[in-house]
Amino acid sequence: MKSKYFSEFLGTAFLFCTVVGSGIMGQNLSSNDSLTLLANTLATVFALYFLITIFGEHSSHFNPVVSMVMLVKKEISTQVCTVFIILQISGAILGVMLANYIFELDPVYFSEKPRSGTHLFVSEILATFGLLMVILLSSKEKVALTVAAYIGAAYWFTSSTSFANPAGTIGRSFSNTFAGISTHDILHFCVAQIIGAFLALIVYRTFFESQK
Amino acid sequence: MKSKYFSEFLGTAFLFCTVVGSGIMGQNLSSNDSLTLLANTLATVFALYFLITIFGEHSSHFNPVVSMVMLVKKEISTQVCTVFIILQISGAILGVMLANYIFELDPVYFSEKPRSGTHLFVSEILATFGLLMVILLSSKEKVALTVAAYIGAAYWFTSSTSFANPAGTIGRSFSNTFAGISTHDILHFCVAQIIGAFLALIVYRTFFESQK
Amino acid sequence: MKSKYFSEFLGTAFLFCTVVGSGIMGQNLSSNDSLTLLANTLATVFALYFLITIFGEHSSHFNPVVSMVMLVKKEISTQVCTVFIILQISGAILGVMLANYIFELDPVYFSEKPRSGTHLFVSEILATFGLLMVILLSSKEKVALTVAAYIGAAYWFTSSTSFANPAGTIGRSFSNTFAGISTHDILHFCVAQIIGAFLALIVYRTFFESQK
Amino acid sequence: MKSKYFSEFLGTAFLFCTVVGSGIMGQNLSSNDSLTLLANTLATVFALYFLITIFGEHSSHFNPVVSMVMLVKKEISTQVCTVFIILQISGAILGVMLANYIFELDPVYFSEKPRSGTHLFVSEILATFGLLMVILLSSKEKVALTVAAYIGAAYWFTSSTSFANPAGTIGRSFSNTFAGISTHDILHFCVAQIIGAFLALIVYRTFFESQK
Repeated sequence: MKSKYFSEFLGTAFLFCTVVGSGIMGQNLSSNDSLTLLANTLATVFALYFLITIFGEHSSHFNPVVSMVMLVKKEISTQVCTVFIILQISGAILGVMLANYIFELDPVYFSEKPRSGTHLFVSEILATFGLLMVILLSSKEKVALTVAAYIGAAYWFTSSTSFANPAGTIGRSFSNTFAGISTHDILHFCVAQIIGAFLALIVYRTFFESQK
Repeated sequence: MKSKYFSEFLGTAFLFCTVVGSGIMGQNLSSNDSLTLLANTLATVFALYFLITIFGEHSSHFNPVVSMVMLVKKEISTQVCTVFIILQISGAILGVMLANYIFELDPVYFSEKPRSGTHLFVSEILATFGLLMVILLSSKEKVALTVAAYIGAAYWFTSSTSFANPAGTIGRSFSNTFAGISTHDILHFCVAQIIGAFLALIVYRTFFESQK
Repeated sequence: MKSKYFSEFLGTAFLFCTVVGSGIMGQNLSSNDSLTLLANTLATVFALYFLITIFGEHSSHFNPVVSMVMLVKKEISTQVCTVFIILQISGAILGVMLANYIFELDPVYFSEKPRSGTHLFVSEILATFGLLMVILLSSKEKVALTVAAYIGAAYWFTSSTSFANPAGTIGRSFSNTFAGISTHDILHFCVAQIIGAFLALIVYRTFFESQK
Repeated sequence: MKSKYFSEFLGTAFLFCTVVGSGIMGQNLSSNDSLTLLANTLATVFALYFLITIFGEHSSHFNPVVSMVMLVKKEISTQVCTVFIILQISGAILGVMLANYIFELDPVYFSEKPRSGTHLFVSEILATFGLLMVILLSSKEKVALTVAAYIGAAYWFTSSTSFANPAGTIGRSFSNTFAGISTHDILHFCVAQIIGAFLALIVYRTFFESQK
């Protein structure tokens, strides 16, 4: 019981400490944004792989829209879903604050990085649609690899660099660095992510679920 | 029934959204073409891995010459092959248009990037020969990894960056960006790809099939 | 009997020859520190994977704090732990000297690279906490992949680039190059690593062990 | 019967077409040698993985010193070993000539890249020692991954960039590009590789074989 809640909290904290920390490290070492996104990508891919692998037998959503889709699929209860979302958001914020701290920045420094516009909105729908398709179509044994690979591709093929996670979106607003997002843009990113996630559930149910 | 057609369509769309989108992202972030090809490579490797893994139990050719070889091997019917090819080409075009759109480019902007000459023609024969050898010699459990690894190498060891896919070649002509190809050069690329694919089938049948 | 001791020695030597050698190679080829850390990361990830895989059935701690935690978990005896730690430190020093030598540097040239301050101290606690969580939560079949992936992320998400290993910390002080550490800073790094390791054991026992 | 010979020939050709071709591509795209070695590394890692995986059930030495060690271990006959070595050298030369050709270079253009000195000699002993240790200690299921990972690390932790293969050394002398080696330096590289390989066999037999 305890372990699944702790996994969601600790896993999401590690994940967004990685996302934000690797962006800071990249910016500290080079002004080339392509190199920084490359490092950011590899660090995130590695983190997703080890986190989903080690916490998989406990719980490894690390993402409110994943928990919401699992609720609709009746794999978790409303209560568990609610607690998971609270823990995921808290974990993401803690992880980002920790990344800020160890890189000698203020633990909380709200991002001013604008990420808005219709194109980015569509990009986030696509990013989250893809992520949920991957999760819904993957076996338990492969999901750590497929999710890590998906994000490794999606950081580059979407113009929004695939946040695809409301907890991460909120957390990333706490760091005015490479991976940050202005607090003004959190809401529409989260809306796009919810749309993308449920679009994936609909497509999955229409084309794949009845086939199995 | 439905799921295999939808997999070919959606998978090919995601694949070429990745190929073209990651090239645009790379060019937006840096003028260093080596870095852009590196990012393009990693994104494509990741995409091939997750797409073949999640759609593998449905259908995951994503490539007309693969479907054509499977037709000759009598693994699919002429009708299925025809539908697959139409869906692969439509999917590739849609994926590329989507990539253009989310990066704020015109959805259709035909490429002016010339890719011609005998060396590139031979390069595409080699690239597609290698891809089909890998597919023909891989077990179903390993094919996602071996195809992804093959393309990861082939983007760099061929002078044509291994298109190795007629649907992708057509799709990539819809974007005047890093991964694009001038419409004038589509035809000879496709011819080279068909030659390479059937050369692989001949080599496979001569040296390997009877050995199993 | 012999093989487990030899594995700890040879494996740790290869590991830190890789860590230091790849840093020297990176610096020889480019002045861009981000590229050097990227190469350093990939080389270390690859080394951890093959070393833990090939020496896994013998012994593959390669790290005094891992051996110390295994001692507390009663998986090895005090005597074995002591011998392991001596062999790990000797191996790390030999590996670093070998890297120096083949790159035409003095085999021993103590590092002057300062790595101090509270932030780095906290960073090393976090880095080693994470490493031990990964080891404690991984199955024997997956530990080569999860540890390699963890370090691949941690080189970038911690400001200290995750030494997370007292033997490596001592060994790396023997090379005044990219991966080096001033001899003055060894002690507090090792203290932080021990704190992080046992913190992980406590968290593991509290939240996970009783759950299995 | 046929398939094992053809695998050694075709596999070695693909391997060194990748090694040399990816070096040429890297140099064409950027003057940064660190980026070129990074691309060269990833291409080689991917190639080793798919080649050993697809040809593994036939034969996948691709390297005269591996065949020589297998001969001493009585896993292949003297006759097979001899034919393998001839095919490996022919394959490597053909692969390199093909790489030269598709990149619009003269198919044969002997390298003038000097690679000499005691440090490089020791580096090649170490590189080949490590490669053979990995092969001797790996299970058949893991050897594609461990060898690929080993070379991924060894390209960076050795000053000679780990040729570790006499057939490849000869083949690489046919291209005056990034991965080339002056014909004057072939002999001492091959001697170092043979020393390293048999050193590994001795260490393996002393510390590991009797333990199994």
